[in-house]
Amino acid sequence: MSSAENFDRAALEQLVTKRFFYAPSFQIYGGVAGLYDYGPTGCALLNNIISVWRNHFVLEEEMLEVDTSIMTTHDVLKTSGHVDKFADYMCKDLKNGEIFRADHVVEAVLEARLQGDKEARAAKAGKTAEQIAAEAAEDASKVDKKKKKKKGVVVAVELADDVRKAYEETLAQIDNYNGEELAAIMKKFDIRSPESGNELSEPKEFNLMFESSIGPTGHLKGYLRPETAQGQFLNFKKLLEFNNDKMPFASAQVGRSFRNEISPRSGLLRVREFTMAEIEHYVDPENKQHPKFADVKDVVLTLLPKDVQLGGKTETVDMTIGEAVEKKIVDNETLGYFMARIYLFLEKIGIKRDRLRFRQHMDNEMAHYACDCWDAEIKTSYGWIECVGCADRSAYDLTVHSKRTGEKLVVREQLPEPRTVELWQVEINKKTFGPKFKKDAKVVEETLNSLSEDKYAQLAKELETAGVGSIEVNGQTFEVTKDHITVKRGTVTEHVREYTPNVIEPSFGIGRILYSLLEHSWWVREDDEARNVLSFPPVVAPFKCCVLPLSGNAVFEPFVRKFSRELRQAGISTRTDDSKASIGRRYARNDELGIPYAITIDFDTVKDNTITLRERDSTKQIRDTFENILKILRDA
Amino acid sequence: MSSAENFDRAALEQLVTKRFFYAPSFQIYGGVAGLYDYGPTGCALLNNIISVWRNHFVLEEEMLEVDTSIMTTHDVLKTSGHVDKFADYMCKDLKNGEIFRADHVVEAVLEARLQGDKEARAAKAGKTAEQIAAEAAEDASKVDKKKKKKKGVVVAVELADDVRKAYEETLAQIDNYNGEELAAIMKKFDIRSPESGNELSEPKEFNLMFESSIGPTGHLKGYLRPETAQGQFLNFKKLLEFNNDKMPFASAQVGRSFRNEISPRSGLLRVREFTMAEIEHYVDPENKQHPKFADVKDVVLTLLPKDVQLGGKTETVDMTIGEAVEKKIVDNETLGYFMARIYLFLEKIGIKRDRLRFRQHMDNEMAHYACDCWDAEIKTSYGWIECVGCADRSAYDLTVHSKRTGEKLVVREQLPEPRTVELWQVEINKKTFGPKFKKDAKVVEETLNSLSEDKYAQLAKELETAGVGSIEVNGQTFEVTKDHITVKRGTVTEHVREYTPNVIEPSFGIGRILYSLLEHSWWVREDDEARNVLSFPPVVAPFKCCVLPLSGNAVFEPFVRKFSRELRQAGISTRTDDSKASIGRRYARNDELGIPYAITIDFDTVKDNTITLRERDSTKQIRDTFENILKILRDA
Repeated sequence: MSSAENFDRAALEQLVTKRFFYAPSFQIYGGVAGLYDYGPTGCALLNNIISVWRNHFVLEEEMLEVDTSIMTTHDVLKTSGHVDKFADYMCKDLKNGEIFRADHVVEAVLEARLQGDKEARAAKAGKTAEQIAAEAAEDASKVDKKKKKKKGVVVAVELADDVRKAYEETLAQIDNYNGEELAAIMKKFDIRSPESGNELSEPKEFNLMFESSIGPTGHLKGYLRPETAQGQFLNFKKLLEFNNDKMPFASAQVGRSFRNEISPRSGLLRVREFTMAEIEHYVDPENKQHPKFADVKDVVLTLLPKDVQLGGKTETVDMTIGEAVEKKIVDNETLGYFMARIYLFLEKIGIKRDRLRFRQHMDNEMAHYACDCWDAEIKTSYGWIECVGCADRSAYDLTVHSKRTGEKLVVREQLPEPRTVELWQVEINKKTFGPKFKKDAKVVEETLNSLSEDKYAQLAKELETAGVGSIEVNGQTFEVTKDHITVKRGTVTEHVREYTPNVIEPSFGIGRILYSLLEHSWWVREDDEARNVLSFPPVVAPFKCCVLPLSGNAVFEPFVRKFSRELRQAGISTRTDDSKASIGRRYARNDELGIPYAITIDFDTVKDNTITLRERDSTKQIRDTFENILKILRDA
Repeated sequence: MSSAENFDRAALEQLVTKRFFYAPSFQIYGGVAGLYDYGPTGCALLNNIISVWRNHFVLEEEMLEVDTSIMTTHDVLKTSGHVDKFADYMCKDLKNGEIFRADHVVEAVLEARLQGDKEARAAKAGKTAEQIAAEAAEDASKVDKKKKKKKGVVVAVELADDVRKAYEETLAQIDNYNGEELAAIMKKFDIRSPESGNELSEPKEFNLMFESSIGPTGHLKGYLRPETAQGQFLNFKKLLEFNNDKMPFASAQVGRSFRNEISPRSGLLRVREFTMAEIEHYVDPENKQHPKFADVKDVVLTLLPKDVQLGGKTETVDMTIGEAVEKKIVDNETLGYFMARIYLFLEKIGIKRDRLRFRQHMDNEMAHYACDCWDAEIKTSYGWIECVGCADRSAYDLTVHSKRTGEKLVVREQLPEPRTVELWQVEINKKTFGPKFKKDAKVVEETLNSLSEDKYAQLAKELETAGVGSIEVNGQTFEVTKDHITVKRGTVTEHVREYTPNVIEPSFGIGRILYSLLEHSWWVREDDEARNVLSFPPVVAPFKCCVLPLSGNAVFEPFVRKFSRELRQAGISTRTDDSKASIGRRYARNDELGIPYAITIDFDTVKDNTITLRERDSTKQIRDTFENILKILRDA
């Protein structure tokens, strides 16, 4: 197999196009960046990956799969935070209008300057061009790039030591800058277009959701969903009920999501429309153990924990997930359970374990509500690529939607026995309260009855010390005095525990996984003529068996029909290749399509019903009756 | 089973909600008309229908399945005609702003007036309210409504005979009016809002595509695709190549499409976002025979041909598809082949044959490019619903895309032996041509070399009679004289035949099929307590087997786990119901979910490994070992 270091990506891309795994959408119209069509091979591969995913996760765990709308209203995505925060910064070439992602352009320019510095120093030290190139390649493989960006032009210019250090520090934090900071950096380092050298505009925020309008009035704004998760959260109450109110449980969804990327590159790795598969596992925040954790605890994962990264290193450690959870490297059993299950899934479909790692998010990298997050990253010629995110989203989403809609999104659990708890309580002095707050009396009272325990404590203290306290109601501040209310501790007997579940979310980018699988599966046979092979495992191969009549002779036709039918009935997907090419050329085509088995029908078949079975990777052939070979294929 | 006539739709809708087959999207935010989420049962049903579809069509015929972008550029949909023609007319209540589809509101108001007339006449004749209602129901079942619209308020007012006749004639052609005609009708008949009685605005065209913008510039307009077909046509060249240039062949696609309906109603039948499955079968226009037609020729279909409809009737005829093609009722074998295959598919998933018919489009109803079109219509409580269209789209789409992009979308077929054909030929007089047309010489020459045969004939005639002819090049007209060119007939030897294939397109609305299936599968058990049953065939049932432990006793747990695992491994999807409800209540729940089999684990299971198997429709139970019952389920 090709390894990432000396990967001939152009050759793979040629194969991908030739065998129509995928191609730019609307190519005859010139195409549009970031939009791709899957051809018959790519589509079958995609469907098979999804089918394995569904068996591995949904059916195995009896998850509640849903299929929700792509078109989503403004309200929903405003609440989830996407309207305000799902954005990148862009800047424009002031002369030719070309648009760049601001962080990508800074990264590209600084990296090019650092590379130029290195080359200048190496030249001074008398190294050859080859040595420099080899060192550069090594550096590139060390750097963990999640994004591919437009490369800056490298000019061999030596940098002062402090400048070089400033560049390196900036690059180390490139994911964390906001617009103002990026603007300052661009000014400070005189960042210009790496294409034209022209000046760039100040970074401007660009929301990455595709916007549209629902219905004929033009007043109802909608967006194409950026993730499938929100549709699941919104149905939480119905799903819990469907699950007979039993916890924990998971919902799942496979479907299209959209991201209006500023300037998409890197083929399938950064696209504007993509298929995701997401699981939302709802769990008791006070008990994140998983009933089936014992089944996976001995699975060994390659981990890159956050403290290693904080030290500026990328050394991974191999460890059982049992140990990782025990040592608190992974926060809890449920998160660990899913990491192991993700690993088993990726291995099943053909991702190589030595090019797969789990990288923990650093604290500044996580969404503010997440409490732990690990990405399954797969190594490709583009570097380590985030293909599956596995985050503990805490109770964030259910809480914000509940708050916004007034719908309770909680679990109510009958306590084994009633319990007495001490809580803050408010008593309202009706005589003074009503006259004081008049028309606002009702909402102020409601707010007073639903404060957090901390807020009650604060209010009690204010009343005690100053005799007057303040509360906020819908953005307005109201003052209350001892005359209006009393706040004190009291005991309450509870029969039911009510809580908002936390959510553990494994989220799969199917297109990225598919592309990585292409890289991991591809190799070139070193015989007389270099021939491409895609060694997909049978379970995801676009077709499982190719049916080849020796020639166009009509005598083979009934056999082709009969065998194809019986293979299909046994659930083995087939492709008939009765073109006029030689058997050798058809086998080669077969290898390029990644079909694991081929059966050949020849004149002996007509005589004695035997056929030849060829295995793709070994090219070994055996001859037997169709019935026996069908049995082999069925068990393969 | 409930029949369409006395169908209790409210009861079914209650069941659909209770068992979460589907529900309005963003319901906790108030929902949006025409957008629905499928819950676990609906989603599984949907996936299973798609899976049967894929096996029945794609795998069976080795169709080339693709998965193309939903976001589509303006250029593509301008060429396909959707930007200009994919529109409905809307009008607005001038006082309260409510928006209606113009044709629907005309229909609703006129039908209400006709109904009022009928009631007034009946009352005069002394009929009772019950008789009137019964007659109205009978009428409703006779009327073949493809759309459900807001009902007008019925007021018993008698109409003059000529008025009544004018209303009826208008209703008969309601699908064929353009905006101006609708405006005239609305004025003539004083059509007002059936809700408020207010005046309505003039009908205005409203394009039904959701519009958005691709990338950060705001200059690249995109639409959400209204059908999956265009993505297939655009890839025609790659697909033909993938198929080793062999004809005929088919591409296929399953995916989301969008339609920004003006005022969607009727649940899943008229929605803004829906899953389609479409096949584009490319065929030689001179030979529309189908190699497998013999396999289906004896399939009997219920047909409603266009000449019957032209006579104002709806009587169907049952006929084998072989006879229908032979008698030219159905245009050609390939169209007939797919109609039979569509029928077999619908029957397989549980659509009742006595509520399924194929209705031929009348000439004024078809797209202008189509040469024959049959809809598979399924009868529901909303009337006959178009669920599958099966059209011969001729060479329209490939031709327009080819013309617009300059990309040849043709089949080149080696002729068995060369043939001589007489064609128009142009000879250019280089001496005079260049000096005359100067910088335009090249494009004018190119145009002259690629005229249609008709255009050549015309040009030759013009030159002969007037000595001068004109041709159009990119919108500009050029004059050519006998001095510049000679146009004459000449013989050419052809080795290759080049043609644009015709397209036969079976197009499935999966949501409509799913809804119809719910209606056809639903019945109520008439025992002590009326209980709902959904009798889905096992092949599409959301889950195939329910696993029920007798109680929460821990002794049953290992059996639940073991049996569930083994069922899953045998490809039998399961749902465990270990809630505390009684077995009887859980069986009832099971029936409502449409799960065909249930196995119960009780204390005997612990002793001797036997279980009870219950069949949903008959409620019959047998007891046997798990292994034997697994065998039964596997074969079911």
